[in-house]
Amino acid sequence: MSKDYEKHTYLIQAVMPKRLQVAQNHLDSLTKPPGSLGILEDLACRFAALREDSFPTQYKKSLFVFAADHGVVAEKVSAYPSEVTGQMLRNFIEAGAAINVLADHFDVNVEVVDIGVNGDFKDLPKLIHRKISRGTANMAKGPAMTRQQAEQALDVGWHLAMDEARKGVDIIGVGDMGIGNTTPSSAILSLYGETDPEKSTGRGTGVNDAGLKRKIKVIAQAIRCNEPNGYDPVDVLAKIGGLEIAGITGMILGCAANRIPVVVDGLASAAGAMIALKLSPNVADAIFTSHKSVEPGHQIFFDVLQSPPLFDFRMRLGEGTGSVIGISLLEAAAKIYSRMATFQSAGVSGKEKF
Amino acid sequence: MSKDYEKHTYLIQAVMPKRLQVAQNHLDSLTKPPGSLGILEDLACRFAALREDSFPTQYKKSLFVFAADHGVVAEKVSAYPSEVTGQMLRNFIEAGAAINVLADHFDVNVEVVDIGVNGDFKDLPKLIHRKISRGTANMAKGPAMTRQQAEQALDVGWHLAMDEARKGVDIIGVGDMGIGNTTPSSAILSLYGETDPEKSTGRGTGVNDAGLKRKIKVIAQAIRCNEPNGYDPVDVLAKIGGLEIAGITGMILGCAANRIPVVVDGLASAAGAMIALKLSPNVADAIFTSHKSVEPGHQIFFDVLQSPPLFDFRMRLGEGTGSVIGISLLEAAAKIYSRMATFQSAGVSGKEKF
Repeated sequence: MSKDYEKHTYLIQAVMPKRLQVAQNHLDSLTKPPGSLGILEDLACRFAALREDSFPTQYKKSLFVFAADHGVVAEKVSAYPSEVTGQMLRNFIEAGAAINVLADHFDVNVEVVDIGVNGDFKDLPKLIHRKISRGTANMAKGPAMTRQQAEQALDVGWHLAMDEARKGVDIIGVGDMGIGNTTPSSAILSLYGETDPEKSTGRGTGVNDAGLKRKIKVIAQAIRCNEPNGYDPVDVLAKIGGLEIAGITGMILGCAANRIPVVVDGLASAAGAMIALKLSPNVADAIFTSHKSVEPGHQIFFDVLQSPPLFDFRMRLGEGTGSVIGISLLEAAAKIYSRMATFQSAGVSGKEKF
Repeated sequence: MSKDYEKHTYLIQAVMPKRLQVAQNHLDSLTKPPGSLGILEDLACRFAALREDSFPTQYKKSLFVFAADHGVVAEKVSAYPSEVTGQMLRNFIEAGAAINVLADHFDVNVEVVDIGVNGDFKDLPKLIHRKISRGTANMAKGPAMTRQQAEQALDVGWHLAMDEARKGVDIIGVGDMGIGNTTPSSAILSLYGETDPEKSTGRGTGVNDAGLKRKIKVIAQAIRCNEPNGYDPVDVLAKIGGLEIAGITGMILGCAANRIPVVVDGLASAAGAMIALKLSPNVADAIFTSHKSVEPGHQIFFDVLQSPPLFDFRMRLGEGTGSVIGISLLEAAAKIYSRMATFQSAGVSGKEKF
């Protein structure tokens, strides 16, 4: 049991506020009215501060899709059968999924991690093989994982981030695949949002009214029977989480430790990011939001992070489909910062007094 | 006087509604829960319907920045002096402006059109030279343009769209540069929104409170003294518009006539699009929105178009900076449509009954 993620959380430091002011001053010297690029300027400032004004010529961007299965699917909480997780994993490797098309368009490298899918994928060399178990246990009847499994999954994400840091990645995105995973995600967000599961649970891939009722009941039951301790985020993760959620948490911690901007996706990413925030609040400075999911529990994450979503396209697919859009916007913002002409260099007149 | 834009408006036809349904059916066969890509699916459907299911291998995308000066700047309605229009035009050609950086990032070709800048740019071969006059007259004291000038400017945009159609462009975006142009833009939107200029006028590049008050008064005065006839959109354009706004109108008409999707930007594009919508309501099917500007008058356009903005990044720069982001999102959506695997082709199980 190495728990590397835990030994090194001291590396996760908040960005120095002065860096943000220095960055804004630079932005105000560029050929545009001050502040006129709105949120893109905020992103650029945060990127510049986090990366200490180091801008690449070519941006290396990777999206990690963590895939795992969920025992709680036995409670009929998903509109699709569990085997879809493994089928979609193959679809990712064959580049037929939405995330492949979007990542290709936005020039982002996609890595798929089997961290707990119920199936054999030895025939897929492009897959990152980090299976901890063949899915979680049914959290409606007991803990989803042992504490040790959760810690192993955290380390998987942590070490993948470390590897990326060594390779000199500039921006990382996280995504998820796991039939049933909006159930543990909503459970985690509901717990930390101190809200009734009824208010924070949505239809996931599209359950009907009866399915939604069942899902809400299952989440309440999982919290009741497991008694996760909110003051011990790993306990929460183990009891009512998932392996892909834990992998995402570990990766976010690893990105923050290396001051790599990490763009989060929808509900499962938000659940993973929530655990990361609880383990080390300073990760907030490395986290960049992307879309706001249709899932109602997602808002709890933005409230705790104290940072709004970038856009709302009524998406609810996961896979990192929001992340890759967010990555491209962050890259665009960073380029604005480092590539635009200044008023002086371009010989453009400044503002008048009115 | 050719008025080609007028002779051919019959070419602008609404999309057949059945095409949209056929497109949605195809999207629902792809490996994702139906509707789970939200607005991206709406964009994909509209693209597929407009282009009659013809998807390119490589997308050709062009952004046209129409630049012109405004006599109304004499009333001190802008925070920057008029000469900035020409200075920025040089900045565009030298690729130092925000639009250059963003267009490069999103792989969009930028074309800059001098349709009425107060300056000489013979030394810039990359510029598209279509100057009609050295800026408009002061609309606070009389018509901004003659009707003939407005018609010439409409033809400039129309013919540029025709040229692009011949070259096989897939998506066009429009943008603007013109110190003072939020004043005529707000005037046009205010007129068609039947709202008080006080409610539809913003700070543009950033005038102070006194400047904003002055701007509102000038807009009210321009409408009062010119009496633009709302039933005659070219009269409105000539009296309280601008040359770049007219160029944008002509280009939107030309795109719609060729069923080329055209992505609109901020306030000046919205004013141009508003005139296009009034000349031929069917252009709505070719118009794709991008960002929502900080300028309050922008909302009038979305209301008339009956289509919301795609995103709100608190931007207020113009140049097409919102358009190029919108172009990339539209391209991403179109690729989703034509490049994803189906449930059948990928061997992925379908939905269960719950």
